[in-house]
Amino acid sequence: MRNRHAVLSVVAIVAIAAQSTAPARDDKPGPLTVASQGSFFVGGEVKPAPPSAAAGPNAPAGDITVNQMYVQYQVPVNAERHAPVVMVHGCCLSSKTWETTPDGRMGWNEYFVRKGRAVYLADQVSRARSGFDASIISAVKAGKSPPSALPNIIAASHQVAWTVFRFGPSYPKAFEDGQFPVEAANELYKQMIPDLNALLPNPNPTWTNMAALAKQLKGAVLMGHSESGFFPQQAALIDPNGIRGLISIEMPCADMTASQVSALARIPTLVMFGDHLGDVPPGIVNWKTTYEGCNEHVKKVKAAGGDIEMMLLPSMGIRGNSHMLMQDKNNLQLADLILAWLDKHVDK
Amino acid sequence: MRNRHAVLSVVAIVAIAAQSTAPARDDKPGPLTVASQGSFFVGGEVKPAPPSAAAGPNAPAGDITVNQMYVQYQVPVNAERHAPVVMVHGCCLSSKTWETTPDGRMGWNEYFVRKGRAVYLADQVSRARSGFDASIISAVKAGKSPPSALPNIIAASHQVAWTVFRFGPSYPKAFEDGQFPVEAANELYKQMIPDLNALLPNPNPTWTNMAALAKQLKGAVLMGHSESGFFPQQAALIDPNGIRGLISIEMPCADMTASQVSALARIPTLVMFGDHLGDVPPGIVNWKTTYEGCNEHVKKVKAAGGDIEMMLLPSMGIRGNSHMLMQDKNNLQLADLILAWLDKHVDK
Repeated sequence: MRNRHAVLSVVAIVAIAAQSTAPARDDKPGPLTVASQGSFFVGGEVKPAPPSAAAGPNAPAGDITVNQMYVQYQVPVNAERHAPVVMVHGCCLSSKTWETTPDGRMGWNEYFVRKGRAVYLADQVSRARSGFDASIISAVKAGKSPPSALPNIIAASHQVAWTVFRFGPSYPKAFEDGQFPVEAANELYKQMIPDLNALLPNPNPTWTNMAALAKQLKGAVLMGHSESGFFPQQAALIDPNGIRGLISIEMPCADMTASQVSALARIPTLVMFGDHLGDVPPGIVNWKTTYEGCNEHVKKVKAAGGDIEMMLLPSMGIRGNSHMLMQDKNNLQLADLILAWLDKHVDK
Repeated sequence: MRNRHAVLSVVAIVAIAAQSTAPARDDKPGPLTVASQGSFFVGGEVKPAPPSAAAGPNAPAGDITVNQMYVQYQVPVNAERHAPVVMVHGCCLSSKTWETTPDGRMGWNEYFVRKGRAVYLADQVSRARSGFDASIISAVKAGKSPPSALPNIIAASHQVAWTVFRFGPSYPKAFEDGQFPVEAANELYKQMIPDLNALLPNPNPTWTNMAALAKQLKGAVLMGHSESGFFPQQAALIDPNGIRGLISIEMPCADMTASQVSALARIPTLVMFGDHLGDVPPGIVNWKTTYEGCNEHVKKVKAAGGDIEMMLLPSMGIRGNSHMLMQDKNNLQLADLILAWLDKHVDK
């Protein structure tokens, strides 16, 4: 620990241009062949909706579809040996999380496909291409509901992201051993989009849709990150039937009853946390206690006979990983850890 | 015309299940090889933002990035011969427009790539993975702005979409010769997401970003549809330098000055309209007068020496196309028309 603090005290100050250019790097990994690709939706419910303000006063009332989940996929050639992986992004982000990194390197989506594994990217319900239910906003505009009925929209600032995502101890200081490509932080900020999850019913339709997707795929591994990091477990508690594995990356773990722990213990589970958990202000997220809470969860599932593994990266000698570890400079090294775990615990 | 009316009077009533299942069709076109793929953002501006409500009262103010445009691309092997195509979706939709059709067939994005052309799918600024500026919604919730400051959000109902997209003369009656796969209309409704363009400044940042993208690509063809159908022209008026062609599908054409017409006449242009333009109620969009307005535009550009072509599909013997013609059953036949036009007018 003494070395860690020494590293931390020597922080680099990184100048962030207000406007950045297109990614300069291109790893040119050679052609990619897929057996198939495409997109579709899972779930969705029809509800009556008043005419939108823009449709004009004479427009008839009608129906809209809400709570659907957009899924984009690529299936490599000879993918049959491996369970597909469903990747779900975190707060204030979209499936862009898993694609080309902010500094232009290959993301986990393509890397997993190149390693022979089908990948399904899901935009959370109420985000990005999944859309959201705008009814309450239009009702407030029309004077039919009070402003207090509007959702608490999460729109994280650059400054909040810097420390919550653990790029450094305070904005704009970076950890000297930090793995996040902070020179491209402006490109990350462009993927940070408003989070409307406050609009969602309970249970979150993303959980239900993830369980349904795993079943539709006749078996899949569910992976979540941060806000969605425990969604795989929530999906498994709704319907474990298609779920062959749970991968949870840097997330708060919910309190589970003994019977819930017992249900989760039937599914192989990997949990991963990065570095500097105690080295950022604990204001919005206290990563140290969040990790400790998840470690308790891991112990409980293990005690219930579960095949569950906690990968705390610095304890494995892998230093400097941020919260956005799928975009960190060593992102493919971490992907290899996950792929090896999948080979051993899911595809065995 | 007599035959057309006869066809119209014999309409099929289509039962629409409230909840549809996953697409049943899969065309299995064989493996696809791409030289590269990925995603990035074009544009974006940094603005100060108050802490979001969810961040808590003690959160510091900070900056957010707005007006960026998310772009997802695939470049086929040996794409050098052909200008890349940038596809931009219409109102209440996302780039899903161009992907797998509602009934599970190949979309134009993949078909163009298979035909050797790089494709860039852009989510409009304020939509889908491009995100939107939520500041005013949070300000209204916080009591700092009146409800009237909220945007007019367009959330088209199933019923409105049915006639505006020209699936039939009235919901849920379908045109007997209609090309849209109405049995999968529920899957289309899932791609219809709230349109927040009312939040955007003028000029629309999507226009500016489309022009910038064409330049960044060192030459590209811009394609728009419906709400975005005239965006290629708007982009060209901002900066024509990267723009090698304009493709406009079923859109309102803006009034142009003589000097604007002259500027647009320097770029090869294709305009495409489908069938049944006068056979749906003209309430929200009057397709007949919209077509006529665009036909006037085409004549003006032609008179100014432009290489511009209007493809009115029924006048070419291609019947029954809806407004969502990139998803119609004959979508690849229409793609072939566009690809042949590109070969002849852009890549010549």
